[in-house]
Amino acid sequence: MKAPRNTWYAAGWPSDFTAAPTQRTILEEPLVFFRTSVGKLVALHNICTHRFAPLHMGKVIGDTLECPYHGLRYNTSGVCVFNPDLDGQVSPRSRVNSYPVVEKGGVCWIWMGDPAEADEAKIVDFPFLHSPDTYRPLKGYLHVRANYHLLIDNLVDVAHGLILHAGTLSTPGLAKGHHEVGRDGDGIWVKRSADECVPSPVFDMLWRRVRGDYTGLLDHWTEARWDAPTLISQVTGSQVHGEPHETGLQTRNCHLVTPATEHSSHYFWAICRNFLLDDDRLDDDMRVGIDYAFIEQDEKMLEAVHRNLNGRDFWDMKPALLKGDSGTVLIRRAIDRLVAAENQSSAEPAKRIDTSQVPS
Amino acid sequence: MKAPRNTWYAAGWPSDFTAAPTQRTILEEPLVFFRTSVGKLVALHNICTHRFAPLHMGKVIGDTLECPYHGLRYNTSGVCVFNPDLDGQVSPRSRVNSYPVVEKGGVCWIWMGDPAEADEAKIVDFPFLHSPDTYRPLKGYLHVRANYHLLIDNLVDVAHGLILHAGTLSTPGLAKGHHEVGRDGDGIWVKRSADECVPSPVFDMLWRRVRGDYTGLLDHWTEARWDAPTLISQVTGSQVHGEPHETGLQTRNCHLVTPATEHSSHYFWAICRNFLLDDDRLDDDMRVGIDYAFIEQDEKMLEAVHRNLNGRDFWDMKPALLKGDSGTVLIRRAIDRLVAAENQSSAEPAKRIDTSQVPS
Amino acid sequence: MKAPRNTWYAAGWPSDFTAAPTQRTILEEPLVFFRTSVGKLVALHNICTHRFAPLHMGKVIGDTLECPYHGLRYNTSGVCVFNPDLDGQVSPRSRVNSYPVVEKGGVCWIWMGDPAEADEAKIVDFPFLHSPDTYRPLKGYLHVRANYHLLIDNLVDVAHGLILHAGTLSTPGLAKGHHEVGRDGDGIWVKRSADECVPSPVFDMLWRRVRGDYTGLLDHWTEARWDAPTLISQVTGSQVHGEPHETGLQTRNCHLVTPATEHSSHYFWAICRNFLLDDDRLDDDMRVGIDYAFIEQDEKMLEAVHRNLNGRDFWDMKPALLKGDSGTVLIRRAIDRLVAAENQSSAEPAKRIDTSQVPS
Repeated sequence: MKAPRNTWYAAGWPSDFTAAPTQRTILEEPLVFFRTSVGKLVALHNICTHRFAPLHMGKVIGDTLECPYHGLRYNTSGVCVFNPDLDGQVSPRSRVNSYPVVEKGGVCWIWMGDPAEADEAKIVDFPFLHSPDTYRPLKGYLHVRANYHLLIDNLVDVAHGLILHAGTLSTPGLAKGHHEVGRDGDGIWVKRSADECVPSPVFDMLWRRVRGDYTGLLDHWTEARWDAPTLISQVTGSQVHGEPHETGLQTRNCHLVTPATEHSSHYFWAICRNFLLDDDRLDDDMRVGIDYAFIEQDEKMLEAVHRNLNGRDFWDMKPALLKGDSGTVLIRRAIDRLVAAENQSSAEPAKRIDTSQVPS
Repeated sequence: MKAPRNTWYAAGWPSDFTAAPTQRTILEEPLVFFRTSVGKLVALHNICTHRFAPLHMGKVIGDTLECPYHGLRYNTSGVCVFNPDLDGQVSPRSRVNSYPVVEKGGVCWIWMGDPAEADEAKIVDFPFLHSPDTYRPLKGYLHVRANYHLLIDNLVDVAHGLILHAGTLSTPGLAKGHHEVGRDGDGIWVKRSADECVPSPVFDMLWRRVRGDYTGLLDHWTEARWDAPTLISQVTGSQVHGEPHETGLQTRNCHLVTPATEHSSHYFWAICRNFLLDDDRLDDDMRVGIDYAFIEQDEKMLEAVHRNLNGRDFWDMKPALLKGDSGTVLIRRAIDRLVAAENQSSAEPAKRIDTSQVPS
Repeated sequence: MKAPRNTWYAAGWPSDFTAAPTQRTILEEPLVFFRTSVGKLVALHNICTHRFAPLHMGKVIGDTLECPYHGLRYNTSGVCVFNPDLDGQVSPRSRVNSYPVVEKGGVCWIWMGDPAEADEAKIVDFPFLHSPDTYRPLKGYLHVRANYHLLIDNLVDVAHGLILHAGTLSTPGLAKGHHEVGRDGDGIWVKRSADECVPSPVFDMLWRRVRGDYTGLLDHWTEARWDAPTLISQVTGSQVHGEPHETGLQTRNCHLVTPATEHSSHYFWAICRNFLLDDDRLDDDMRVGIDYAFIEQDEKMLEAVHRNLNGRDFWDMKPALLKGDSGTVLIRRAIDRLVAAENQSSAEPAKRIDTSQVPS
């Protein structure tokens, strides 16, 4: 599929992975994740090299994963180290791919490309994810049957809020607000702001809960920043007219998209608020609204759009381009350049799925 | 798909379409239908040219249809006339296809071919559909997962009634009755009749309800007429032996088939009786029998046959041809000629789905 | 699909087929089975040559099968002998394929290849299936969504029992037992045995039920024999240490695999015990355990493996070969040779699905 490989993708939230094996497909590759006895996260190719059983149906034994069919055991490097049958021989070449995984900054990251290039220092940090004194995160996960580009478009796009999220996240005044797009290093950002306008129903609810009654008009702003390959850091805030951002309510959010296949994506989201840090019930209330917006509105729309594309290339469809699309267009082109650069650097990309064996 | 384009197809019954947008795929094209504030029926291509959202999920606002994703509004000609975001600019080329639709004679018709050739005068009329003083129509709709040719074959064919509809619509005596096939202008008709034979259970029920007890033997006749592209007008009657047709009971029926895709069809039917015009309960009783025959018998059979064809061409399958097939063979060949003629007249058919845009 | 054709496959157990038509796809061909008035089993191609209706939806009338759509009747040779409509004419060439079927040794067999070569003497016999004085069979059937090779692999393989069937059929001691593979005529056999080891939970239950308390250690042995094309005869036994096999408990089993499509298989199994021949309740108890092992363990695994292969060739996947695989590798290669030999002997294989007709 068309997506960068030599880069860190979110594999999941730390709580997604336990000692029990978990399957997850990333960049069309079937993977199995498990934690060793000391909690270290491991990612292996999910197909046994012997008779092609799915390893996630097996058991973790010590620091190895046992194949559920014939009991071959693979260590954390993907090397088969045990065969319970007859002479117990395995081929030294009998191994499944192992993928670099790192747990950092509140996210489990995976590197699907050339392991030699997997540099942890390049992992993007989202400070609000791991600053419990200032931000309280609310996290979730969706498996969306749409190409990852459509999710990125949606997450950076302000305009659709007005229509698709009318009644939930929509702040109508932002439609006619100040719009700015720019670059910051390799990142691309999109900003919108509007003064003295009606907040979204969700922010209205939050404001009343935190600050009590008010005029019903606030200054609003939202900023989204894309980092390669598919990471969105986003902040939404509102405050009393003319006051600095810091005095208002903010949610700092990250939206981590990971291509599963050409036709489906993993979507990890975290909404992190800078207020009512100890209010457990607010988590539940917010989750109801977020689930409605993300599942009933965004997910349904993105899957419908994906079906409408029906395998055709987005650009070949000649989309009408509007002013509000300037950010998403920049980002699509940046991703396309990353893919093209990888294809150029290796006419024949390194084959990662290696099931070759010396016959025993 | 292989079907005539420059012709009027039934898009639906007038009651199928309201102010709320309705989707329907015709000739593989996704369409959205809605009525304007004055009730005028509009058909547009159902995919927004901006980010390819399905327009039928949107709202009708005045005489425009609002895209559910970003709120672009399309007028009845398919031109985008409003963008709620930022500068509000849209490209003058930002438009979706609009299709000629006409409400006439109790049917909503659509023209999928070259709009310049859409001549309302060519629409086939079914007088019994709109003659409430003489005929009372009972209408229905089925979405059948079978190629439209199979539906036409079935609707013109008398022979299958004896077997497939044994116990409902079957008049066994017709098997050995008088059989005739002919042409009338561009139409093709098939007639069967048989004297003094046992009526179908349905006609027996009707006769007793309308005329009381009788000998159990009647003269029977049925005529089906095909008009291009896929319209069947059919009459079934029975009367006391030797009496003229006019003295008996008749249902005049129309069966309007519209290709949805190569593998599915819209089927609009109306059974119009010339008796008990004010009997509401009879509608319910008839519907039970019709639903059983059409859904449990015909639809199941046609979908099974379609699966058996499995994408292969009907003629390549070398069907055994029987005397009773003479009508359906003529009709299949007439439709094939219409398709061939269209393909000849335009080596490259006009591309209807136009999503090209000038970037704003 | 890649499977031998000139050979006898199991079509089903005798009780699978009654006077009512039954459909079953074998080697990608849709078939209909029915019994005539004298109980003779007939297999015909399941698609009517007239309008391609599925014959299994029809009725058996005398010794003919009536098409459910137009009532054409086919005799046991597949010749259309009756048309109820109009002149009643059928073409002498109007016929569907008829396949040699033989009921022999407790199994219904079908020959999908050249009928001239269908020699009943070549049918493999499983004496324990029809020796009620010595063996009591318990039979079953599964439709498995996996290629037939995967089923054969599984049925001959001893090693997976240890892991996949831990808690049911597993006799762990066999893992380190004596292993032998050999040929006997055209057959291939695999043997395993181990002395004084803990029996499987199932054999432990059986031993206690038949012989009462014991030390918990027994001698164990299992032998599987493959015969072309896809027939496995298998025996599992255990006895007191040092005693001859005949003194112990045995189940003699046959596993008859018939390719349905490239992606699905019919699996007919019979477990035949040489003890408690009159114990009806034991049948029920054994079926619970067998169903769990075959459905919850083997079937789930094989379908998962088939999905993992995802249409790729098994050998192209370069499976790691272990010592325990020696039997299954011999068998795969023997089947491959049968297929290759058939392909060589007829560059263009006889077309079996003949729907050609002289128009009447």
